[in-house]
Amino acid sequence: MSAIATRLNELGITLPTPAAPAANYVPTMRSANQLFVSGQLPLDGGKPRYLGRLGDDLGVPDGQAAARLCAINILAQVRAALDGDLERIVSLIRLGGFVQATPAFNEHHLVVNGASDFLFDVLGERGRHARFAVGMASLPLGVAVEVDATLEVA
Amino acid sequence: MSAIATRLNELGITLPTPAAPAANYVPTMRSANQLFVSGQLPLDGGKPRYLGRLGDDLGVPDGQAAARLCAINILAQVRAALDGDLERIVSLIRLGGFVQATPAFNEHHLVVNGASDFLFDVLGERGRHARFAVGMASLPLGVAVEVDATLEVA
Amino acid sequence: MSAIATRLNELGITLPTPAAPAANYVPTMRSANQLFVSGQLPLDGGKPRYLGRLGDDLGVPDGQAAARLCAINILAQVRAALDGDLERIVSLIRLGGFVQATPAFNEHHLVVNGASDFLFDVLGERGRHARFAVGMASLPLGVAVEVDATLEVA
Repeated sequence: MSAIATRLNELGITLPTPAAPAANYVPTMRSANQLFVSGQLPLDGGKPRYLGRLGDDLGVPDGQAAARLCAINILAQVRAALDGDLERIVSLIRLGGFVQATPAFNEHHLVVNGASDFLFDVLGERGRHARFAVGMASLPLGVAVEVDATLEVA
Repeated sequence: MSAIATRLNELGITLPTPAAPAANYVPTMRSANQLFVSGQLPLDGGKPRYLGRLGDDLGVPDGQAAARLCAINILAQVRAALDGDLERIVSLIRLGGFVQATPAFNEHHLVVNGASDFLFDVLGERGRHARFAVGMASLPLGVAVEVDATLEVA
Repeated sequence: MSAIATRLNELGITLPTPAAPAANYVPTMRSANQLFVSGQLPLDGGKPRYLGRLGDDLGVPDGQAAARLCAINILAQVRAALDGDLERIVSLIRLGGFVQATPAFNEHHLVVNGASDFLFDVLGERGRHARFAVGMASLPLGVAVEVDATLEVA
């Protein structure tokens, strides 16, 4: 088993069958050596989890769990785009972290760590990435977090 | 007439003279084979249309019309960047869909379909793209939708 | 002294030691000739400045000063990534301008000009860029503006 698959196994994570987009867009697009992953929601078994707003319904640990679930779905989409072979990841380049939050909330960076920490854990040095973390008025299906990604792939 | 120009013609769409930016930025930037298009507003004849918030002043069909108008303005900017020749588009890579919305609104993805469906209709297979759809507290000039884009061009 | 360093000197700007990220992400990532800069906050001496919302606590000039400070921090990160040599910048490609704002605020583009004008002033023709400017419900640490960037570098 490859390094990345082994680490997922150790963490007890089975990547889901990636969600199909519900419209005229695709989950991943390749341009030269870059792979662009559409914004992923915290779907679990196809259903949205972690509904609500940070600073209101949800605390930072909930938000981090939501961000981690978005990151799992990113990996699932990447695996599908790479014909099942996650070892073709050269590096994660960039994450966009969108957090549904109240005007008073100010710990978006801690929430998005749920995705950053998980991807660094699974991908190792290949998991280093630039990112932003920002607060949204609302998100599709009412979820707390959405994360998109750009990777370099072989 | 080229395939893309023919389809625009069939749809009765005349691409506008693209809006000039009002500051020290440019509508499009080229880097290698990628073309980055600045966030486009639903301007019509130079004036903002579809003012307001989804979930409040505006319904999903209004939002979709706003997103479609943003996409028309994206194509107008791309045409200007490609010296008038839309056939130099290799593929749309990625759309960023920013929807002005209330905290309770949860159908941002349906709103951004207004841009995705239009671009797929006009560009065909070259119109496939990754994207995100998120909810904003507010947008420039009070418009309901802003869309930016990255394309691969020849 | 190089052209960019000279202009910074004329403006009386000393680029700060760039802020270290507080999590498993990095301030800059390179992919081919592109350099991705993580979202920068208006930190001054390591402390957040310009806290609050546009349209409420803060006016447009405050927001522009916040955006300019984000841009200074972007240049500091880029300099570190380029081993101190800002002349290796080929061009700024794209800025993402996130403005904490009330639902009624509609001048995000004027706020983000604080970053665009500064970077064009310092980088000259190499400072031209595509961008978006959008309104957020909230931002990390309660700051008014966050800006991320993509550049082409040699």
